[in-house]
Amino acid sequence: MNIPDINLKRIVIIGGGFGGLRLAKKLSTQNYQVVLLDKHNYHAFQPLLYQVATAGLEPDSIAHAIRQIFAKKQNFFFRIAQVQSINPETQILSSNIGDLHYDYLVIATGSETNYYGNVNIAKNAMPMKSIPEALDLRSLMLQNLEAALLTNDLDERYRLMNYVIVGGGPTGVELAGAMGELKKHVLPHDYPDLDIRRMNVHLIQGSDRLLPSMSQHASDHAFKYLEELGVQVWFNMTVKDYDGQIITTDKRPFEATTLIWAAGVKGTLISGIEGDGVVVGGRYSVNEFNQVKGFENIFAIGDVSLMMTEEKPKGDPMVAQVAIQQGKLLAKNFENLKNNRALIPFKYKDKGSMATIGRDKAVVDLPNWKFAGWFAWFVWMFIHLVSLVGFRNKMIALMNWIIQYFQYNKSVRLIIRPFKGRHGDETDDPNLF
Amino acid sequence: MNIPDINLKRIVIIGGGFGGLRLAKKLSTQNYQVVLLDKHNYHAFQPLLYQVATAGLEPDSIAHAIRQIFAKKQNFFFRIAQVQSINPETQILSSNIGDLHYDYLVIATGSETNYYGNVNIAKNAMPMKSIPEALDLRSLMLQNLEAALLTNDLDERYRLMNYVIVGGGPTGVELAGAMGELKKHVLPHDYPDLDIRRMNVHLIQGSDRLLPSMSQHASDHAFKYLEELGVQVWFNMTVKDYDGQIITTDKRPFEATTLIWAAGVKGTLISGIEGDGVVVGGRYSVNEFNQVKGFENIFAIGDVSLMMTEEKPKGDPMVAQVAIQQGKLLAKNFENLKNNRALIPFKYKDKGSMATIGRDKAVVDLPNWKFAGWFAWFVWMFIHLVSLVGFRNKMIALMNWIIQYFQYNKSVRLIIRPFKGRHGDETDDPNLF
Repeated sequence: MNIPDINLKRIVIIGGGFGGLRLAKKLSTQNYQVVLLDKHNYHAFQPLLYQVATAGLEPDSIAHAIRQIFAKKQNFFFRIAQVQSINPETQILSSNIGDLHYDYLVIATGSETNYYGNVNIAKNAMPMKSIPEALDLRSLMLQNLEAALLTNDLDERYRLMNYVIVGGGPTGVELAGAMGELKKHVLPHDYPDLDIRRMNVHLIQGSDRLLPSMSQHASDHAFKYLEELGVQVWFNMTVKDYDGQIITTDKRPFEATTLIWAAGVKGTLISGIEGDGVVVGGRYSVNEFNQVKGFENIFAIGDVSLMMTEEKPKGDPMVAQVAIQQGKLLAKNFENLKNNRALIPFKYKDKGSMATIGRDKAVVDLPNWKFAGWFAWFVWMFIHLVSLVGFRNKMIALMNWIIQYFQYNKSVRLIIRPFKGRHGDETDDPNLF
Repeated sequence: MNIPDINLKRIVIIGGGFGGLRLAKKLSTQNYQVVLLDKHNYHAFQPLLYQVATAGLEPDSIAHAIRQIFAKKQNFFFRIAQVQSINPETQILSSNIGDLHYDYLVIATGSETNYYGNVNIAKNAMPMKSIPEALDLRSLMLQNLEAALLTNDLDERYRLMNYVIVGGGPTGVELAGAMGELKKHVLPHDYPDLDIRRMNVHLIQGSDRLLPSMSQHASDHAFKYLEELGVQVWFNMTVKDYDGQIITTDKRPFEATTLIWAAGVKGTLISGIEGDGVVVGGRYSVNEFNQVKGFENIFAIGDVSLMMTEEKPKGDPMVAQVAIQQGKLLAKNFENLKNNRALIPFKYKDKGSMATIGRDKAVVDLPNWKFAGWFAWFVWMFIHLVSLVGFRNKMIALMNWIIQYFQYNKSVRLIIRPFKGRHGDETDDPNLF
């Protein structure tokens, strides 16, 4: 793999998401050699994927080249690689670009779409966990409207104009809201020869409220905002099957060419890390120092890790803040390791959560304050702007949002590469990270 | 094709490039029904394709959704379609989405890469005439650097770091300049563990000067600027063959994994329009009203047309300005037709030409003034900004250029979809428009 050998212990980080990136940034490369591996050459800002899918932002605004972030860091090496397996005995990982020895390994592979074993849904639904997937979704939604224009079969046209989103968490709610805005403000102008009133956006939620990880206040407002945008929300409904045209649920069927699956994620595991109770619920069970159970030199952070404590038997939520805080602490703990100091246990500090449904329609839960509406929308926008990686991306996203705010428009409704079938991300072999 | 039948004559325009777009915008849909067909749902601003390929602009900034442009136009219909053939007898065109009758047909299909029959070059070289092709080129250039990091075979590494551009016209010169800037200012920081001094950008030109369509003043400055950026320019050299690794010329061979072909274009013809002298040099021979030879109701404008006059036996250059002016005049002539007035003959008004090589390095030829340097660069930037379609695109491009100006950076060096082999534009069947 052509990594120069030097007299430092080597930390290999798998995954350049929120956790891996923060860890790599904070790690002192005076004390360790750091190797970061990712299957892409960029960090993707996942909370804004839904805006790429709904033509609000260009993909390049939410991606940032990893090399650029670390351009001046010494003893740091980045490689595009798909890790295939890990051998904890020999401390060697195998990847599509060769083998690599590690002294410490940090698994920060994040999570992937979970279809809970339903092969038909996996085959026919659209996921939205990566930039290529979001681009495929953008293409498909627009292609379906173009196809609806061409058919004289009214049932077929109806199916093409039906968009069903499964999952009432932040991803499903934000996606449904953005699609509601498209339907209400943009598409009637784009498709004057199509009756956009016939277009439906359905959001199916398994439980009795949206955004179950947030407050009741947030759930209620999110529901109200979605109704205002014409989104049809279905509670206490479970999707059973999907053949590409008909969605079967435990209540009523839906006819739709597009089903977007935002109903679950699971950790992205790598073969070779096994043992009693190591993998729990599809994630690596870790102690309070993020060490994977049974291993001293293998860590897992973020979505792929599950830290069960007496206080929180179900662990922390699978959100960016947990990954970021764990990455930051782990960097400090590597310093402690180097200096033979005791490791500091992780404790998640919940800074609050938020979701946006549309222009002036957002919900924010802070530890001591819950609010909604235009001010929440501004807070949401501000927080996401400062969180985006890179000055350019912040500026471009801000510019897009300002223009959209005043024009009620979503400008990047382009089919740059038509969607031709599932798995647009050519590097996404499900067996590889 | 589900186009409502109304009591107007139907003009079908094939192609939403500079000519077709201008024509469609200017046509009064009080007097005609207008149908615009394009194989993409967007207009691409081709003069900036090279910036997409070299990570300076996101693809979405140089594309604009065609539906958005015509959102409020009556009696106007847009369809994504690939026209397969035309039957002038029945006045029906066949496409992948069905047949359509026309009263008037305007062929504005533009031009495509011309390999002059060399199948090896066509198979192994990279073209850059569409947004998907520019994105493929961006991915490939970055992938090759990543691959260069991984190999220990020094010959292989050298080939991966060699980029050869064929063609010293505006496309080749602008691309070579942008790659020179990447090499000089960006890549050494991105790839500290790669000796970027070993990277070469070669520009091969068949004649004895660059930008042969511009003044000697412009040619001289372009050459000087490229040398300053470390680009190696080869004059009076003809590329003979390319097997994917070795480029054979009439002088010396080059070893390179990447060959970018910007050495020629030809009109994108559609089968069915034939006859004595109708196609000349791969373009439709038209009279001074842009009527295709032998047809009264079939017009061709822009790159695909060739208007030979006594004054200009070789016709006008294949540039955007010609297409725009022809589109504009043809719209007026359709009004004249409607009102039984005489048609106005076309006369190209050369407003000048320009090319940019890098930051503060541009050349401008105006009819009465030729200049180069930072002021030319500002003029180039201003002209391209106002020419970009859409307020959002202008603002985003401006923002990108301002940031790049001060940071000496090109921020979108992302491999969003890895290049896997030729013909990334899935809709580009060479037999179809």
